[in-house]
Amino acid sequence: MAERTKAFVQEHVFPVEREIIVSGRPMDDALRVRLQEEARQAGVFGPLSPVAYGGLGLDTRALAHVLEAAGASLIGPIAVNASAPDDGNIHLLAHLATAEQARRYLEPLARGEIRSSLAVSEPSPGAGSDLTMLRTAAEKAPGGWKINGVKHFVTGADGAAFSICMAATAGGGATIFLVDQDNPGLTVGRRMPTLDHSAPGGHCEVTFDDCFVPDDAVLGEVGKGFEQIQARLAPSRIMFSMSWLGVAVRAHEMAAARIVGREAFGAAVAAHGMAQAHVADNEIDITAARALVHSTAAVIDERGALSGAARHASAITKTFVSEAVWRVLDRVVQLYGGLGVCEDELVARFLVEARGFRIYEGPSEVLRWSIARRVLRAHR
Amino acid sequence: MAERTKAFVQEHVFPVEREIIVSGRPMDDALRVRLQEEARQAGVFGPLSPVAYGGLGLDTRALAHVLEAAGASLIGPIAVNASAPDDGNIHLLAHLATAEQARRYLEPLARGEIRSSLAVSEPSPGAGSDLTMLRTAAEKAPGGWKINGVKHFVTGADGAAFSICMAATAGGGATIFLVDQDNPGLTVGRRMPTLDHSAPGGHCEVTFDDCFVPDDAVLGEVGKGFEQIQARLAPSRIMFSMSWLGVAVRAHEMAAARIVGREAFGAAVAAHGMAQAHVADNEIDITAARALVHSTAAVIDERGALSGAARHASAITKTFVSEAVWRVLDRVVQLYGGLGVCEDELVARFLVEARGFRIYEGPSEVLRWSIARRVLRAHR
Amino acid sequence: MAERTKAFVQEHVFPVEREIIVSGRPMDDALRVRLQEEARQAGVFGPLSPVAYGGLGLDTRALAHVLEAAGASLIGPIAVNASAPDDGNIHLLAHLATAEQARRYLEPLARGEIRSSLAVSEPSPGAGSDLTMLRTAAEKAPGGWKINGVKHFVTGADGAAFSICMAATAGGGATIFLVDQDNPGLTVGRRMPTLDHSAPGGHCEVTFDDCFVPDDAVLGEVGKGFEQIQARLAPSRIMFSMSWLGVAVRAHEMAAARIVGREAFGAAVAAHGMAQAHVADNEIDITAARALVHSTAAVIDERGALSGAARHASAITKTFVSEAVWRVLDRVVQLYGGLGVCEDELVARFLVEARGFRIYEGPSEVLRWSIARRVLRAHR
Amino acid sequence: MAERTKAFVQEHVFPVEREIIVSGRPMDDALRVRLQEEARQAGVFGPLSPVAYGGLGLDTRALAHVLEAAGASLIGPIAVNASAPDDGNIHLLAHLATAEQARRYLEPLARGEIRSSLAVSEPSPGAGSDLTMLRTAAEKAPGGWKINGVKHFVTGADGAAFSICMAATAGGGATIFLVDQDNPGLTVGRRMPTLDHSAPGGHCEVTFDDCFVPDDAVLGEVGKGFEQIQARLAPSRIMFSMSWLGVAVRAHEMAAARIVGREAFGAAVAAHGMAQAHVADNEIDITAARALVHSTAAVIDERGALSGAARHASAITKTFVSEAVWRVLDRVVQLYGGLGVCEDELVARFLVEARGFRIYEGPSEVLRWSIARRVLRAHR
Repeated sequence: MAERTKAFVQEHVFPVEREIIVSGRPMDDALRVRLQEEARQAGVFGPLSPVAYGGLGLDTRALAHVLEAAGASLIGPIAVNASAPDDGNIHLLAHLATAEQARRYLEPLARGEIRSSLAVSEPSPGAGSDLTMLRTAAEKAPGGWKINGVKHFVTGADGAAFSICMAATAGGGATIFLVDQDNPGLTVGRRMPTLDHSAPGGHCEVTFDDCFVPDDAVLGEVGKGFEQIQARLAPSRIMFSMSWLGVAVRAHEMAAARIVGREAFGAAVAAHGMAQAHVADNEIDITAARALVHSTAAVIDERGALSGAARHASAITKTFVSEAVWRVLDRVVQLYGGLGVCEDELVARFLVEARGFRIYEGPSEVLRWSIARRVLRAHR
Repeated sequence: MAERTKAFVQEHVFPVEREIIVSGRPMDDALRVRLQEEARQAGVFGPLSPVAYGGLGLDTRALAHVLEAAGASLIGPIAVNASAPDDGNIHLLAHLATAEQARRYLEPLARGEIRSSLAVSEPSPGAGSDLTMLRTAAEKAPGGWKINGVKHFVTGADGAAFSICMAATAGGGATIFLVDQDNPGLTVGRRMPTLDHSAPGGHCEVTFDDCFVPDDAVLGEVGKGFEQIQARLAPSRIMFSMSWLGVAVRAHEMAAARIVGREAFGAAVAAHGMAQAHVADNEIDITAARALVHSTAAVIDERGALSGAARHASAITKTFVSEAVWRVLDRVVQLYGGLGVCEDELVARFLVEARGFRIYEGPSEVLRWSIARRVLRAHR
Repeated sequence: MAERTKAFVQEHVFPVEREIIVSGRPMDDALRVRLQEEARQAGVFGPLSPVAYGGLGLDTRALAHVLEAAGASLIGPIAVNASAPDDGNIHLLAHLATAEQARRYLEPLARGEIRSSLAVSEPSPGAGSDLTMLRTAAEKAPGGWKINGVKHFVTGADGAAFSICMAATAGGGATIFLVDQDNPGLTVGRRMPTLDHSAPGGHCEVTFDDCFVPDDAVLGEVGKGFEQIQARLAPSRIMFSMSWLGVAVRAHEMAAARIVGREAFGAAVAAHGMAQAHVADNEIDITAARALVHSTAAVIDERGALSGAARHASAITKTFVSEAVWRVLDRVVQLYGGLGVCEDELVARFLVEARGFRIYEGPSEVLRWSIARRVLRAHR
Repeated sequence: MAERTKAFVQEHVFPVEREIIVSGRPMDDALRVRLQEEARQAGVFGPLSPVAYGGLGLDTRALAHVLEAAGASLIGPIAVNASAPDDGNIHLLAHLATAEQARRYLEPLARGEIRSSLAVSEPSPGAGSDLTMLRTAAEKAPGGWKINGVKHFVTGADGAAFSICMAATAGGGATIFLVDQDNPGLTVGRRMPTLDHSAPGGHCEVTFDDCFVPDDAVLGEVGKGFEQIQARLAPSRIMFSMSWLGVAVRAHEMAAARIVGREAFGAAVAAHGMAQAHVADNEIDITAARALVHSTAAVIDERGALSGAARHASAITKTFVSEAVWRVLDRVVQLYGGLGVCEDELVARFLVEARGFRIYEGPSEVLRWSIARRVLRAHR
């Protein structure tokens, strides 16, 4: 399946990626739909979607191979319907949705018929890494809830069919709501001008203004939102790592091929020791990152995505892989020389797009803090 | 003078910089002219221009303080007429120009009346870090020379009054030519889509097509171009380092101010040890970079910009400072969290703009190679 | 088996290790024999020795768990008969020995009845990382060979029963010889004062002076030594990595336990962010190193120790793990503060002992070179 | 003076250093007295001692050149009477001593007639980096004070003439005492087995047991010890940095000379790019460290050793230099290959001796914390 995905990405995605990645045209849904149709025909659609919904239903270990292959292009994951935030949202819904919610939200999402967004982060002084600072609040109203608040970095919001929104509810807890995008109380504001451009639907500002949702819009349990949102965490972090690993692998191969064919100072660039050191460090970083991804995938499959072991392993993996990928792309830019910082070349965009990976889904510092606390707790 | 420059940048440049840096409007000459007029009135214009031409004629040591202050904004150096490539070109002309060339090119350049460009780099397999791979060639013609070739990364070309062009000439050497921009044989092509946007005139593709220049267009000696272009090197590298240090200092201060005023996990972000580690590392990197810049400035003033000592020291300094600035800006982005990768914030642009600094004027790898060879030669 | 080995090391090895590691008493064979007898009784003897010779005959994947557990003490691997150079020598003999050679050398070695040494490295300008610089030479003599030359870093030589000696033979190749330690032509000189002390038999200088060995002392084929010695490489590098990972894990745990119980500046050291960063980085390095070891172990088991894939993976793993272990131990020393550099504490010795790991069995630079060449070759 | 010191160290110290550094013979006072006499004759004795006491009375800037030269040998600083803890103690006494105390302690110390020690650190849970955890206490007694407590890491204690002891006194403050070594209440215990061996007098355990000292043994003011001990800090940290920089410079030069003369893989080691990268990084680290040392020396001379600016600059410098020196020595070991971890070579000892430098006089983590707090305070 990884081989097939690799071939699909090379044949169907590479030819169109430059327009999105280099020229900066936002990824639109027309292109997404077309690519996903091609993926379906190639038999590589929906690696993480349940088989019941037309997906491949792969376990995390198999997913690691497939998403690394899909990640070779920044728009590869969306082409096979496995990109953020839908990937984590599918997991969350599979874990928490009622049958009716599954029918309305999970199934079309898994089938690639719609996209979703995740409305958790808030402008300061609201919720960021520290979810307990949540300002958006939902009040009970007859037959449902009224949500008020402002969100930002709502990934995928532009063009999404629904939002997964986290709001504070009475009693100090939080609750997760499914909000249809056409709800008149929900306004999608501007796409934020983030360094990364390739996420379909962008990262938007979203306002909830007396946004009424019925009782059955509650995903999971009232007041349990802080705990239940964690169900997204391990899967989302590990899938993010898999896709970005694919970008690093591709950039590494592009750089290797390039320096073999260029000369400077009387020899192929590939013959210079400092270039070789970059190549070796990239190979080492990629191999270690891949080993870590696969071992964490095994933990998730064997112990469950909600286990403490999975959470610990995925925090470690996301931290390491996001930093290793950054190092690899940075060295690749250096190996390209002047053209490495010119957006004519994919590698310049790869580097810029990758910068958010060390922050999204948990900044390295917050992850390190959580990793250390788990280690230290065991010694108390 | 550094204090005065600092005040000028804060009062005159900060208010307009967002439009250029964040909104991506190219720096145009109208704005440049306006800012330089304001700089003149504030008494901070032309720190490196000779006094005879309306400049301040500072030595390198004094320049270090002033350019760090100017560098607080990405468009501060251009506002005081001390940005690449004009800064190095002024040095080169002061070193090599005949009286007539000085009158025609150096004087108006030093006065900020015109801008210049530097046409050395060529697309592969032409000259890059390895100048000896030069493909652009000049052939003797009656009364002058005919230049043919293609250049890229011609910094400042869009809107420049003249180009300093390096071309191979008979006998295996190279020659430097002064080419008026309105020469019909010179065509400025597109601005290359580099990650940095704030250089006035961009980085362009330029074609020389049977471009005729008269004999007095030769700068310096025929056939001595490879040696003579080195006169730009030490000044250009050290001035580049000074300005970028200014960017790092500003970003560091912005981050410190910001984390003092933000809370997460029950305390100010500034109270968290990992944030403090970033702040301390930034302070250390900046202090070391500054010490290195000042010590190299002293070498240049005392031993001359053409001395081996100056060349060695400026290669070391450019390598260290470009990497230290990168580390500082990267940590600042991390301290900003999500907003650090959002171009609403200057710091996101700072990071992206800075990436070229580790490649322009000599990639770190090539500089390391030259540093090592000088060290090792002494032990043979 | 890993659990049992862990328990064995804690119960039998920890109580005696301080004398060797901290007090600097050389590991003698009496202690080795005693510990190995205890290991046999605990059922953990000989993880890599063939079952036929009283060992556990584990595959590389299983070995990874067991050697990490044994590595918790610097003398744990020798206690279970799996320390350098015997570990690699067992592999080499299993691969190349005739039935008679197996009976005479492999069997008692695998049973822990004797120790062996590896005589390859030579003082400059002889063979180091570059085996082709081999100076020790063997000349054909009636009924055998005469070996002449000087070796150093002959690990395990003091007290070994035999040496595996590499010598140049006619025709430009090399040949591997089995030389009994009591051969009058072989002289074991001083133990070299290396930073590491815990290797049984030390690293010695050895001289071969008209050292006659019979024809059946040739291991493998005459003239094929350069190729055949490679059979040691992947196993030896990966086993080295496994044991050292065990040291890192133990030091990490010791540091975590320690900082939980110490106070400074008004809080437990474990509550300070910079200490937590060290703990997290150690956990990340260890987890990545372990994942890499296990994935390379799988490559060796599935593709064979002689495959190119195994050689590539083990070079990557040895490079990464040796550097990760070094980082971990260095942070641990820092977490211990002043006592971290006092040999009262095991961690001070761990750091010093570990320094050679980045050089022995291939310095990181040579390994990076070989890794890069393999990557680049694929792009030619 | 730096040149003269360099010549002195090469002629008088290099010939005897191996015995101390490589063979591990403790530096005894007979050798110290002999070397210091030779230094006196060479006119390089006492760079930091006041001229009135036979010293050179150099300011900090001049000292930077001289101590870097002296530092070329680990026992160079003691040979010119400028090694820890006497260097900082001379500063402390010059700052605080009464005329009588100066006559009794400062003068003979500055003249090299005696050595001193510094008794501040205590075993856990006493004072370490956090001085306020001080357990050793002094109680008022008729005509003097009774000191009780246990100290460790008392640098120089074995053979010292007196100790500078910090003890808690009534009211929550601390007081500094001058305690003659022959005081019956003071017992010098064992030399702690630290990784560094070359400090004269070692790092000892010292017990104060009802140790009576007269009133005039108080150095400075009663109760002001915490503040007054700071007078040692900036000078001690910067002088430590100067000497260690000298070690790094020497190791760098040794490595450069060595790899020029060795071959591997068909070329001089010095021709391999990865070796060149190490050489360049060493040159960069050394040049940056030196620039930082000199700029901090200027701050100390211009603003005073007690100024906040001096304290900040010296904390930054000690952190950077201790880590840069470590990186340099580590790369040098790698450049030496196997012999780099063999104590036949000075570089192996250099690395091990240097490890404490990142902890003594303030661990990097504590220094980073203090640096960050000063930066952040300015933004509140």
